[in-house]
Amino acid sequence: MSRFIRRIPEGDDRERLMCPDCGHVAYENPKVVVGSIVAEGDTVLLCRRAIEPRRGFWTIPAGYMEMNETTEEGARREAWEEARARIALEGVLAVYSIARLGQVQVIFRARMAEPGFEAGPESLEVRRFAWDEIPWDDLAFPSVRWALHAWRDGPPGAVATNPPEDARGMRPLPAGSAA
Amino acid sequence: MSRFIRRIPEGDDRERLMCPDCGHVAYENPKVVVGSIVAEGDTVLLCRRAIEPRRGFWTIPAGYMEMNETTEEGARREAWEEARARIALEGVLAVYSIARLGQVQVIFRARMAEPGFEAGPESLEVRRFAWDEIPWDDLAFPSVRWALHAWRDGPPGAVATNPPEDARGMRPLPAGSAA
Repeated sequence: MSRFIRRIPEGDDRERLMCPDCGHVAYENPKVVVGSIVAEGDTVLLCRRAIEPRRGFWTIPAGYMEMNETTEEGARREAWEEARARIALEGVLAVYSIARLGQVQVIFRARMAEPGFEAGPESLEVRRFAWDEIPWDDLAFPSVRWALHAWRDGPPGAVATNPPEDARGMRPLPAGSAA
Repeated sequence: MSRFIRRIPEGDDRERLMCPDCGHVAYENPKVVVGSIVAEGDTVLLCRRAIEPRRGFWTIPAGYMEMNETTEEGARREAWEEARARIALEGVLAVYSIARLGQVQVIFRARMAEPGFEAGPESLEVRRFAWDEIPWDDLAFPSVRWALHAWRDGPPGAVATNPPEDARGMRPLPAGSAA
């Protein structure tokens, strides 16, 4: 990567990473994270991360979407990889943008499709937490907190977006107001 | 790109594109398309594409999300670039996966924030269509049809995902069934 240079390709309107030798443009695109709130009764499944960033902190099963899979397939794959859980998806819970990281998160509502879970290779520990047991101070990322609250407090069908504390873009709009 | 080779980097579990000279791994990630159904009364705003693919066919204002923007900012940017429309977003309408293209589409419900629109540089023509006027046979992509139907027929707060004709992943699950 260090040999790549930044310049505006012909016909484009912003700088891109280009290889000075072959002219290949390495477009940098936002990456998609897919994950799920896996609920059972009033408990949710959380994984303690075995890898950086935020090793030792708790997160929902989630990770980068791969090519040639759907968001749903990705969310199920991550639940298997991180928590050895077979899950069934019930709908989109939230779409978050982490603009400074170039990240879009698509988080699903899910439940266990089969009983049983255990730590996968990227987790130190996997367990269920009732709402009052959730280790709020030891969550890996703010968006884990957002998703937990969206699951608990959001209206059933509606999809959540960034909360007001981190909104940049779509704020709730009073009727008749401009963007 | 032609000089890149495919191999499995150390510690990974699938082939990636690598530069044989510098070892740079060009991760291929799904790309995010952001767009919107811009409604006014019972009409929607469509753009006739001035660029390939599908030049001459009709689409909603939509395009690739850029780095360092939110999905909402991207959707508003695309409405400006393609239709010179200032729009206000009202919520996520749909999240579609086009797995064979490695694409995730986040489509918003929107309305005009200011009056006025015209063809931007990537459009031949921009106009409003009542439902019965929509040029169904001249739509650029299947997902434009999906989004139009989700806007017209979907329950207000709920987010749409791929329709049954193109579902791979999250099908509606009868209670108690496995994934």
